[in-house]
Amino acid sequence: MYKFDNDYSRGAHPVILNALAEINDNSYVGYGHDEICKKAVEDINKLIDSPDAQIHFLVGGTQMNMIAMEAMLHAFQSVISADSGHIAVHESGAIENTGHKVHVIPSADGKITAAQIAENANYYIHNDLKEHMTQPRAVYISFPTEYGTLYSKKELEDIRLVCNKFKLFLYIDGARMGYGLTADENDVTLADIATYADAFYIGGTKCGALFGEAFVTTSPMIQENFRNYMKMNGALLAKGWLLGLQFHELLKGGKDCLYFQICRQANEYAKRIQAALDSTGAKPYIRSQSNQLYYELSRSQVENLRTQGIFFELDHWIDDETALVRFCTSWSTTEEEVDALVNAIKQ
Amino acid sequence: MYKFDNDYSRGAHPVILNALAEINDNSYVGYGHDEICKKAVEDINKLIDSPDAQIHFLVGGTQMNMIAMEAMLHAFQSVISADSGHIAVHESGAIENTGHKVHVIPSADGKITAAQIAENANYYIHNDLKEHMTQPRAVYISFPTEYGTLYSKKELEDIRLVCNKFKLFLYIDGARMGYGLTADENDVTLADIATYADAFYIGGTKCGALFGEAFVTTSPMIQENFRNYMKMNGALLAKGWLLGLQFHELLKGGKDCLYFQICRQANEYAKRIQAALDSTGAKPYIRSQSNQLYYELSRSQVENLRTQGIFFELDHWIDDETALVRFCTSWSTTEEEVDALVNAIKQ
Amino acid sequence: MYKFDNDYSRGAHPVILNALAEINDNSYVGYGHDEICKKAVEDINKLIDSPDAQIHFLVGGTQMNMIAMEAMLHAFQSVISADSGHIAVHESGAIENTGHKVHVIPSADGKITAAQIAENANYYIHNDLKEHMTQPRAVYISFPTEYGTLYSKKELEDIRLVCNKFKLFLYIDGARMGYGLTADENDVTLADIATYADAFYIGGTKCGALFGEAFVTTSPMIQENFRNYMKMNGALLAKGWLLGLQFHELLKGGKDCLYFQICRQANEYAKRIQAALDSTGAKPYIRSQSNQLYYELSRSQVENLRTQGIFFELDHWIDDETALVRFCTSWSTTEEEVDALVNAIKQ
Amino acid sequence: MYKFDNDYSRGAHPVILNALAEINDNSYVGYGHDEICKKAVEDINKLIDSPDAQIHFLVGGTQMNMIAMEAMLHAFQSVISADSGHIAVHESGAIENTGHKVHVIPSADGKITAAQIAENANYYIHNDLKEHMTQPRAVYISFPTEYGTLYSKKELEDIRLVCNKFKLFLYIDGARMGYGLTADENDVTLADIATYADAFYIGGTKCGALFGEAFVTTSPMIQENFRNYMKMNGALLAKGWLLGLQFHELLKGGKDCLYFQICRQANEYAKRIQAALDSTGAKPYIRSQSNQLYYELSRSQVENLRTQGIFFELDHWIDDETALVRFCTSWSTTEEEVDALVNAIKQ
Repeated sequence: MYKFDNDYSRGAHPVILNALAEINDNSYVGYGHDEICKKAVEDINKLIDSPDAQIHFLVGGTQMNMIAMEAMLHAFQSVISADSGHIAVHESGAIENTGHKVHVIPSADGKITAAQIAENANYYIHNDLKEHMTQPRAVYISFPTEYGTLYSKKELEDIRLVCNKFKLFLYIDGARMGYGLTADENDVTLADIATYADAFYIGGTKCGALFGEAFVTTSPMIQENFRNYMKMNGALLAKGWLLGLQFHELLKGGKDCLYFQICRQANEYAKRIQAALDSTGAKPYIRSQSNQLYYELSRSQVENLRTQGIFFELDHWIDDETALVRFCTSWSTTEEEVDALVNAIKQ
Repeated sequence: MYKFDNDYSRGAHPVILNALAEINDNSYVGYGHDEICKKAVEDINKLIDSPDAQIHFLVGGTQMNMIAMEAMLHAFQSVISADSGHIAVHESGAIENTGHKVHVIPSADGKITAAQIAENANYYIHNDLKEHMTQPRAVYISFPTEYGTLYSKKELEDIRLVCNKFKLFLYIDGARMGYGLTADENDVTLADIATYADAFYIGGTKCGALFGEAFVTTSPMIQENFRNYMKMNGALLAKGWLLGLQFHELLKGGKDCLYFQICRQANEYAKRIQAALDSTGAKPYIRSQSNQLYYELSRSQVENLRTQGIFFELDHWIDDETALVRFCTSWSTTEEEVDALVNAIKQ
Repeated sequence: MYKFDNDYSRGAHPVILNALAEINDNSYVGYGHDEICKKAVEDINKLIDSPDAQIHFLVGGTQMNMIAMEAMLHAFQSVISADSGHIAVHESGAIENTGHKVHVIPSADGKITAAQIAENANYYIHNDLKEHMTQPRAVYISFPTEYGTLYSKKELEDIRLVCNKFKLFLYIDGARMGYGLTADENDVTLADIATYADAFYIGGTKCGALFGEAFVTTSPMIQENFRNYMKMNGALLAKGWLLGLQFHELLKGGKDCLYFQICRQANEYAKRIQAALDSTGAKPYIRSQSNQLYYELSRSQVENLRTQGIFFELDHWIDDETALVRFCTSWSTTEEEVDALVNAIKQ
Repeated sequence: MYKFDNDYSRGAHPVILNALAEINDNSYVGYGHDEICKKAVEDINKLIDSPDAQIHFLVGGTQMNMIAMEAMLHAFQSVISADSGHIAVHESGAIENTGHKVHVIPSADGKITAAQIAENANYYIHNDLKEHMTQPRAVYISFPTEYGTLYSKKELEDIRLVCNKFKLFLYIDGARMGYGLTADENDVTLADIATYADAFYIGGTKCGALFGEAFVTTSPMIQENFRNYMKMNGALLAKGWLLGLQFHELLKGGKDCLYFQICRQANEYAKRIQAALDSTGAKPYIRSQSNQLYYELSRSQVENLRTQGIFFELDHWIDDETALVRFCTSWSTTEEEVDALVNAIKQ
């Protein structure tokens, strides 16, 4: 069985487990006030070249998004997202449960444009009906998107300008940040992300950690009460150093850190698979730029791969004969697995 | 100045004010437990031919919709609405503030179809991702819609069947119920509304009352705790009899009640205005069936009417030369006003 | 039947009803943007001698309290109240439903002291556990209290100083403000209230209006988004002028306004009743200073009064033989009623 | 440095880390649908002798309590707790943030009685004001309590009967369940807990796990939508097997499982420390029955211990000369540490 269904199906990079074992007998103060968390914070501040950024470690992505929105928005304010955005579709209404509307913008490839954001914000904010409508106050994008696509530096810059114009916070969901930053076609650095976004997170769960996500914010307003929002939502891990340690192991060493190495590898594997699929004439659903590949396969292709022990995500049947499928590489994908998939595709 | 901008710009039908004056010195028990509320409840139960329906009197429409949704939905559940639905656009995120997502369905005329509802519910409910998505549990429609259009009996029946299939509550916003029920082309009775809907309200504010809306529900589940939801949201009026009295005055007398008389009159006036507009070749934006008329007027038509002292709502400029405008008649519209508008149009 | 059970059992002062009738045919813009609301705002600004105070008209007290708290508090913040405070006991958890804890302070007479507030705030705010606890950010008091008692000017001043020290908003629930301000023993003016409080409301429902309460805030932070919070909670009355008109009629004329006249009268009646009760040796539960009288009556006294057609609130039986009862005068109480009660007491 | 400040300052029992390393390369389906979680569920079902109980694995205690309350309560309902209960004091208003009031009952030792619960429920539920007050619907207790005390079987039975009478869910916070069940004086089994409670959790974080808590509910109503509430609150861990694995390792083997062994050891160490303290005449603040010891120490005693490298929690200074301190043993406490503390005490 060769598994390409997702990037969160295995434990952690061995370096992480070893580090956990090594410090297991030490005693630390709780709730993230320990020295390992401090080191991890320094690692990140260095990577983004922003000594005043505030950093917090949380357990998962939905938790992160929901708390970030609660910290950014007044009760009557709302967030703008692509219609395929994780907060718009796959978080069981977590954002609405904190009291906020998600304004969705149609998007074919998971991305939204500065112009779309401006149009939406303009409609709601420059409106006679003011208090009768929600007030957009944040923009949610993901890097890379749900479809593995990337924003260019220019696109992020344009979005930032629109956010400035309409007083919108820019929040970037980086569940797969590592895969985005190390993609071939990417021209954005983590420091750029920190410059354009008011807040974002560096995903651990899908990028080599056992679990955990690192929240980063340069906005004093968001910084002010973030830990209160975390605790109030059950997101202040008692043994906070477990999270700090993982990010320290992944991110120490700057641009050559483990995090980038293992994500870059996964992208390279994805490129090989992409080439193999393209060579068979398979139709990409969207031209992904990172570790997730979306293709339209025929029923016989689907069955053929399955017969050969290839495990992948079947998103849905577009019609009776065509399925939208996703192949996902990860930090744990091995050369052997990629060879097996490439061979299976070529059969 | 002849005012056609909306149907909530004047006090109340004189009968209401007289009745208020008449009972002003009497002393009543508070919070709707008085005998006048009981009479109004009986009037409604009779009109809808449903002795077990539960009825509550609230102050306004947004308050009503928000409490109804809170009473119908668990925290992770959501409501389906037209994209032009009042809860989707003009309630400042009141529904989201109670924790619930509003799933919007595109609609050109303010109506949604049974097929659209089924498709939406099917996508969310019959889905492997179950708990990752919100669960639609209610459908919100308005009768008449924001654009003055009406659902036929057959359309409501179809929607009811889809609601049964997917276990969805059907909720009907009746802010302008009186205008809908007394429209020429309407084939639905208040008893039909009570049969198809799990809950709905009979609008007072826009239909002759000083203020107030009457909530009706036949669903035991919604009935169970409704007063708790009212109080918790500050919607239990201390002097409840003020609301009961108004609905008693409007609805006593069954099919010939004041409520229907004054709304029917407003519809007839609207027909006259519609005929006048059509005769000038003005383009209806939507073919309304009740007291709200949406037309596309040229800049010069707009200015011409304004010069003649006609006051109407300019929704927005479709392009540089064309405006979407609304003419709205109401229970307080007079023949003289209609004559003035018809003459102005014909100029 | 002579009714002393509460002060919200009758319609409105005749002046209000007449004013409503007089403007009934006029057409006004909605949602409080009309000229009558502007007049009422001016009346209030003049009374409190604060031209920059922001004023909004709402329908009821629970609605008011809940929206005020939502506007003042971040999600993790809380409000301090007497354990007998309306928000702590009789609003069905409305404050908690907006997400905020109510910290209760024990109180025998409905009042809390500056020292109690300081102790509570100190415990929560100067605490190592910071984000593990809610953060008090507002103090709720009522003037007069639930038991009819009053804060002296000195007491309010002391509370204000504590609020300054701990950065707490001071909010005063004035459901019965008129009765408090016109009480014999009172040394506080409405202008004082506006000086000490960040926000408060002037109650209409219990003081001569048909319905409605006037919110006043001098705090720019609370002012900023108040209308959004109103709309989002269904508290923006479409026919806003109905509220403005009532407060204009009640408050025009400054210190001799109708509002003070009718409340002062009610206090005088209460004094007569108090004297009658005291003369029989009945034990006051609390020495009220305004229109609500709390006494402990024996079973035979209770029955005796009832037999004579006196209607009052029986709060609860303290023991088998003793009941806590409330006699409440109001703007609508007549001399004849008071005579009847005084005679009945003396029997 | 010898650390007795809390029971969550070290990683995990070595068995847990080894097990994590062993399965690290395996690939699992996400969100708790894996086979290891199934095994852990079976382990628990066996321990509580209840094959139909539903079990879910969450990350932390505040998260757990908040989701449990949201799943148990309608918006207008509330939960009864000791005034020292974790949900009442140390969760930053998490329960209120989900919309629910916490009714606090005074308690000296962390426990509340059946009689106290009955009195509280009776006051709120059998009340004429019904919808004006919140409706208690759940009781929160902890086993052991915040002060290390235990409920006897008889006490739990009495509480259960009151809960039945007033239709209250009984929820037991078991953050330190292992220490409670293995205490010398305890007469309650995990199966008893499952019999008396509608829902409870078995704490992992403080009892040998790296992180994680196991929720158990026998109530069909709570079971119905629990995963939805989890996801909506960001509590559905992507790599669910990490939690399942830990509970499988801790709980497999029934009554002799690792969980009970390591907790029993911690209790025995606590007894040795208790004896040492008592022998010096130190005054217990509360007579704890499990791994947390609360004592009143003089300033010189506090300083003496600190000088000897003993680390403990100083709760607060009762007066200038007396501090309330807590000594906490845990699954990771060693004999050497206990010897050091005992010696230091005896100095």
